[in-house]
Amino acid sequence: MLTIHAVTHNKWDNSLKPIASVKDGDVIEVETKEASDGQITPSSTVEDLRGLNFDLIHPLTGPIEVEGAEPGDAVEVEFLEFKDMGWGWTAVIPGFGFLAQDSYTTPMDLSGPGLKIWKSDGEHSRATFGNIHVKVRNFPFPGVIGTALRAPGRWSTIPPRENGGNMDVKHLTVGSRVILPVFKRGALLSIGDTHLAQGDGEVCGSAIEAPLTVKLRVRLIKNAGISQPIFYFSKVKEMDYDEYLAYPGMSPNLWEASKIAVKGIISILSRYMTPLEAYMLSSATLDLKVSQVVDVPNWIVTAYFPLDVIEEREVREELRELDKVVG
Amino acid sequence: MLTIHAVTHNKWDNSLKPIASVKDGDVIEVETKEASDGQITPSSTVEDLRGLNFDLIHPLTGPIEVEGAEPGDAVEVEFLEFKDMGWGWTAVIPGFGFLAQDSYTTPMDLSGPGLKIWKSDGEHSRATFGNIHVKVRNFPFPGVIGTALRAPGRWSTIPPRENGGNMDVKHLTVGSRVILPVFKRGALLSIGDTHLAQGDGEVCGSAIEAPLTVKLRVRLIKNAGISQPIFYFSKVKEMDYDEYLAYPGMSPNLWEASKIAVKGIISILSRYMTPLEAYMLSSATLDLKVSQVVDVPNWIVTAYFPLDVIEEREVREELRELDKVVG
Repeated sequence: MLTIHAVTHNKWDNSLKPIASVKDGDVIEVETKEASDGQITPSSTVEDLRGLNFDLIHPLTGPIEVEGAEPGDAVEVEFLEFKDMGWGWTAVIPGFGFLAQDSYTTPMDLSGPGLKIWKSDGEHSRATFGNIHVKVRNFPFPGVIGTALRAPGRWSTIPPRENGGNMDVKHLTVGSRVILPVFKRGALLSIGDTHLAQGDGEVCGSAIEAPLTVKLRVRLIKNAGISQPIFYFSKVKEMDYDEYLAYPGMSPNLWEASKIAVKGIISILSRYMTPLEAYMLSSATLDLKVSQVVDVPNWIVTAYFPLDVIEEREVREELRELDKVVG
Repeated sequence: MLTIHAVTHNKWDNSLKPIASVKDGDVIEVETKEASDGQITPSSTVEDLRGLNFDLIHPLTGPIEVEGAEPGDAVEVEFLEFKDMGWGWTAVIPGFGFLAQDSYTTPMDLSGPGLKIWKSDGEHSRATFGNIHVKVRNFPFPGVIGTALRAPGRWSTIPPRENGGNMDVKHLTVGSRVILPVFKRGALLSIGDTHLAQGDGEVCGSAIEAPLTVKLRVRLIKNAGISQPIFYFSKVKEMDYDEYLAYPGMSPNLWEASKIAVKGIISILSRYMTPLEAYMLSSATLDLKVSQVVDVPNWIVTAYFPLDVIEEREVREELRELDKVVG
């Protein structure tokens, strides 16, 4: 089996030369760096965030040539196995994240910087938030996977685009497949920004960021006629938890509804930790669902916080009893 | 056990006299009408939608007085059991629904009217879409549950508000609890718009609408200090399916991202049924998740269609193989 080491680039640039070539059906291992490109390590502290160089974000392993791929085809990637290095990180970088501009409208200080280093035993990631011990089931996936763009030039890795890219769709773990359109001969696949786990929304701007080794199968689909990614997921429910505390956000604007929902959960968790920690824990664990988009004019986005991640049984029990949550 | 028959009103009006009174801890049964208030029956056809009187929508059983409830308290409702009448309906009413204004921007005709009558055996609801037999696991819940509003007057039941109301949050089934703020003495709880199942978003504007008998426990929480509903869910995963075909919508606007995602699924399902049928099937079954809200400027909402609901194994197998979906 071919192992592709973490030779990386951090711009989408369809003129880059491939670092490896694969054929239809090949199973390969791809090594990735974490999103900061080595600036954050298992011994980092929040002070280290102050000098963070954003220009290094999203080192991507690749590009990988898929032999025979032509514009108009598609590449399917199936995720088979993930190995981690025993750690990961979640950070709030000031000015970045879903609630970065909300310091004027919430009494909670979410501005950061904030940093959590997680320890992984391969199955779960653990960290402490306030006095709470948190244990998150790992479902590792790449935040970024994409083919070369149609357009020439050097493009930021931050926004997802028609080539996939920084989609941060948390179910792209073992049991899932993604197909990506091919715009350039050879497809030129790149992969990175790997996560041990993530909440929908990735609300604080980072997941549980971690360097991983990703075992995957590449297939070439001729004449696919797709203009953007499509996913297949199996056994998604295995990632789910037993019980949730959930907060609906209602607004004529889905963006505002999402903010209300996320801030509702942060507010409740802030009984046990700082709001900044609750923001990071939300980023690592929340489900964020568009509950309805038809009950004019107030749409609902609901944030689901999995109580199972909290190791203290008495805290889970307290959060389960809504009269104690709000009393 | 107290059974409350379906004596209904269809405006939020805090001057309505209660039809029944309950105490903290009482377990009661509440009978509900379906959302059309008898205009749609098991023998209805799409022609019957043309004369539909929208003014009758959302007959709500209630209001029910909770003894001792005062403004500033909250009422908790726990859902214990649901009984159905063996049928339900899903409709596209022209001009209503998430894609009602999209006839200019999509080649698919989604304008309606469209109607599906489902048969329920208590565990599953079944209907035919094109040549496909669909079997949806029931997870019955009330689309509308709410307390009296603070403001006097007669208010539409369509938008959800701080009192709860038409939230259409699909996990409010057995194993869940909701707390609602109390604005008026006695709380004045109303319940209706019951559904056998629903997709996140309720995209075509209706779920699997059905009259139900709802067994629930009411608790009074004194001095709750909440300004909107909060939920607790357990065993949410039991509602989930084994495999999903999923389509991400990317846009700087969550509303547009949601539309791209839903239309992507409708487009794929339209190989097997009309787009209008696919729109209704989506409304009954989709998961709709806010995948990320931080990868500037393209947010992602992903629509997850559960393949398990399709009874034809060969169709499930075809949709599982993405090269056949797009080839």
